[in-house]
Amino acid sequence: MEPAASYARAGVHLDAAREILDRIADAVRSTYRPEVIAGLGAFAGLYGANVLKTMAEPVLVASTDGVGTKLKVAARLRRWGAIGYDLVHHCVNDILVHGARPLFFLDYIAADRLDPEVVVPIVESVAAACREVGCPLLGGETAEMPGVYAPGELDLVGTIVGVVERSRIRDGHSIRPGDRLLALPSSGLHTNGYSLARAVLGDLDWEKPHPELGTSIAEALLAPHRCYLGFLQAMEEAGIEPKGVAHITGGGVYENLPRILPPGTAGVLHRGTWPEPPIFGLIQRLGQVAMEEMFHVFNMGLGMILAVDPEAAERALALWPGELFAVGEIVEGDRTVYIVWE
Amino acid sequence: MEPAASYARAGVHLDAAREILDRIADAVRSTYRPEVIAGLGAFAGLYGANVLKTMAEPVLVASTDGVGTKLKVAARLRRWGAIGYDLVHHCVNDILVHGARPLFFLDYIAADRLDPEVVVPIVESVAAACREVGCPLLGGETAEMPGVYAPGELDLVGTIVGVVERSRIRDGHSIRPGDRLLALPSSGLHTNGYSLARAVLGDLDWEKPHPELGTSIAEALLAPHRCYLGFLQAMEEAGIEPKGVAHITGGGVYENLPRILPPGTAGVLHRGTWPEPPIFGLIQRLGQVAMEEMFHVFNMGLGMILAVDPEAAERALALWPGELFAVGEIVEGDRTVYIVWE
Repeated sequence: MEPAASYARAGVHLDAAREILDRIADAVRSTYRPEVIAGLGAFAGLYGANVLKTMAEPVLVASTDGVGTKLKVAARLRRWGAIGYDLVHHCVNDILVHGARPLFFLDYIAADRLDPEVVVPIVESVAAACREVGCPLLGGETAEMPGVYAPGELDLVGTIVGVVERSRIRDGHSIRPGDRLLALPSSGLHTNGYSLARAVLGDLDWEKPHPELGTSIAEALLAPHRCYLGFLQAMEEAGIEPKGVAHITGGGVYENLPRILPPGTAGVLHRGTWPEPPIFGLIQRLGQVAMEEMFHVFNMGLGMILAVDPEAAERALALWPGELFAVGEIVEGDRTVYIVWE
Repeated sequence: MEPAASYARAGVHLDAAREILDRIADAVRSTYRPEVIAGLGAFAGLYGANVLKTMAEPVLVASTDGVGTKLKVAARLRRWGAIGYDLVHHCVNDILVHGARPLFFLDYIAADRLDPEVVVPIVESVAAACREVGCPLLGGETAEMPGVYAPGELDLVGTIVGVVERSRIRDGHSIRPGDRLLALPSSGLHTNGYSLARAVLGDLDWEKPHPELGTSIAEALLAPHRCYLGFLQAMEEAGIEPKGVAHITGGGVYENLPRILPPGTAGVLHRGTWPEPPIFGLIQRLGQVAMEEMFHVFNMGLGMILAVDPEAAERALALWPGELFAVGEIVEGDRTVYIVWE
């Protein structure tokens, strides 16, 4: 006689899901603010949005993103403490570009098998990042999908919802030739280009200090995606308003800077004017990657690029030396990006 | 000499991503409403939320969900036309439970390799479902993650954001013994229990009509997750307000009905009072699955359960015969669910 089928035999473990829910509850609740009306246990998260009534024309700003195969780096090293920061910061930066501030966050984790020893630290890390940016983790989902994910693999997806006053939406429309391009440095790869990085660096020892990096490859690869919320708030408080902000993610500067360039403008970047984390040089050299390809795949040290009028740029550079870099300018052109090798 | 590394050689194809973006643009834009200020091409989606200013106490209601291994069923059959409905309807129902109506939706698709012939029909199907429920597809992300997903596999995740007036939030707090339980039937498995279903049915011919089902196994398994938005709106227009609504998803009635039961109450369901799609009987019989397990894994025909006071229940049953079923009642108890086999 055939053994009776069951969900557990089919590879789905509801008990593991329940254990995870119990163990993450405190971390999730630690992100709550008075606006959270319901979260854990409800069918959906409920967030009191009375603050929108005080705005002239509230605009909700939302973005969904993952962290790509940085997950495979974290898995190889069994270090999950930073991956939540990668996810939350990536999403926060994407709405920050448009001038929005975060309201709440939701996450999704799926794996071939839900291992509490992996999922719990990941959610704790998402919660810690949410807490630090003042953004409740309003909802989430864990899913066990045997056969969809490769054994031992998982994916992590986040969605952020924020708000901006309509008159303050940043979209770059007022950018014109003569404006300056300023950069906020990245901490490393952030959350893009890991498939290439792993292909090139995969066979090396990631744990021992690497002379070219000053740290181990592990440290360099896992450096968390920087969050630029605090910096852009400080700029706002100083009365400096960028005309446009580009978050340099998948596709690098070539794909991301044009997204804020109005017709008739182009961006020129002068290589050497911003710090390039040495991990990029190592990948380029060991993989013999064409430099054009490097700038298409990686942020190359450019975390965010701000287009600012010349006077405001001077003021900003004086206020934040060593934090903000003058990396180029806007010229006439066809929404393209030129990188000048100096 | 080693060949130079590149993103394509590392398994990531930016051209496929670009082709997908071009091909889905019209479908995504077809979901837009005047509230959409920016979507495709922006770093985040922008949705004008002036309607919230007209509300006394607006509450945002958000939920993230996937469709589980129903994806593997769609992949085996190469039929992607309904999977977007599964995703969108699942999410819509989750916020509907709390009385909210949808504002906007975001999706995420990741795969070992982004195949436009798969991703494009999926996004078109998400867009079609969004259009039908009047909910713009405000944002989304596609990610190629070689090594994370098994070859040929993908995951699909959705996030919905809706709104409800605070005084009209449904959470079941007023449910008390004597209230009736009404059910809105499911169309089949909806989006839960597919790992078990596939384990039991995997070796059968899915394409030929099955005598026990009246359709093929393929048809039965792919029946789209029903959306209950229209029905609950009709109830509202008829002045019938359920005290609580439970969406029967992962964990079945045992896990989902208690989520709306206040302390001191329990739910009794009388099996045989609602239609059970025959696919459940087939899985149970062929897999020799314990009936208790069946009700823990599958919705067993119960798409949504509504707790309604007795007078309103009579009125509703008279208004929608054959669409709404009297399946049980609330008794005193400890937030548990009893199923009476009749």
